[in-house]
Amino acid sequence: MTVVTNPTDVYVLAQWLAGDHSNWEQAIENPPFFAHIRVGVRALPNPITEDGVWLYLEQAYDYEINHPYRTAVLHLTYANDRIEILNYRLKNAETFFGASRDRDRLAAIDAEAIDQLHGCTQWVHRADDKTFKGTVEPGKKCCLTRKGVNTYLTIDFEVTENSYSSLDRGYSVETDEHIWGSVAGAFEFSKKASFSDEITMKFA
Amino acid sequence: MTVVTNPTDVYVLAQWLAGDHSNWEQAIENPPFFAHIRVGVRALPNPITEDGVWLYLEQAYDYEINHPYRTAVLHLTYANDRIEILNYRLKNAETFFGASRDRDRLAAIDAEAIDQLHGCTQWVHRADDKTFKGTVEPGKKCCLTRKGVNTYLTIDFEVTENSYSSLDRGYSVETDEHIWGSVAGAFEFSKKASFSDEITMKFA
Repeated sequence: MTVVTNPTDVYVLAQWLAGDHSNWEQAIENPPFFAHIRVGVRALPNPITEDGVWLYLEQAYDYEINHPYRTAVLHLTYANDRIEILNYRLKNAETFFGASRDRDRLAAIDAEAIDQLHGCTQWVHRADDKTFKGTVEPGKKCCLTRKGVNTYLTIDFEVTENSYSSLDRGYSVETDEHIWGSVAGAFEFSKKASFSDEITMKFA
Repeated sequence: MTVVTNPTDVYVLAQWLAGDHSNWEQAIENPPFFAHIRVGVRALPNPITEDGVWLYLEQAYDYEINHPYRTAVLHLTYANDRIEILNYRLKNAETFFGASRDRDRLAAIDAEAIDQLHGCTQWVHRADDKTFKGTVEPGKKCCLTRKGVNTYLTIDFEVTENSYSSLDRGYSVETDEHIWGSVAGAFEFSKKASFSDEITMKFA
């Protein structure tokens, strides 16, 4: 049975993502193989365009929650019969450290503040009525250098209303060898607080 | 070429292990896939037996260094043409939390304070003049329950004077399936402080 991904699913996915996520259970069960990570996802107070949903995301170790090791701005749109999540970096990321839990500060994010990461769009579809699944777009173009090797990123993630899992890995652009990231398994997050009421559903 | 492991190698290995080890470089290069871990290894002030070397070991996240997630007492002996590291648990582990950096407290550890973990002896041999290699003894008897599955532990480690690496994994006793631990790669530690001068070399 094929499950159709609808335009309104953009808002459903955004509502499920908007929250404060933690993999505490996983970290406690598996020391020292999974660090305790917190992921904060929050709707931008001033969306940069009218279409879809704009989110701020930050990912941090729980013990230094206001010094995230990764921040991003995400633009969820509906295109090509799927949800596409465009990925942006913040030019001055440090300005917004911690802002997923202090939303007013996110009001300052405008089109000038971000740069798109081409090749890093995530394609997402509905797997069933409780689950979305996504991956990085094909093409091996979402590149970053780690350990001196030019690698491309793959992400396999799964989102439900109250949980999501993500398996992030980097492979050598030249040899396809697995260079970094988890083979131990996916990070498993559960939602500790929801910010879904900040997502405004719009119908075209 | 076969490299012989000598009785005096017990003391060399103990000297190389005695220290404050950190995988900081690895953690910084690979967020969030390797937590920043510290391993403290210290000679017991009052060895429990005359033979070999007795060490206290504690392993902790750097951000909660005085709350280790693992402690052990290790007895390094020479037997069967190799080094054998017998593994003991502390009955009251919390009493000694942090003591790898406060050695006087280790004086209280006596034969009553510990229980041997049978099946968890590590067999170590010299790989070359700069390296020891070790594994858990064969037999799949070093068991622990994780994720509700009865698993046996394997460790592959390599020790040099100023570094060591360790790959710890758990497999299902029933199916040999990989249940926990790293396939992403070994933890890579370097020695930040040495306590080798506390190891007394004895010749029989």
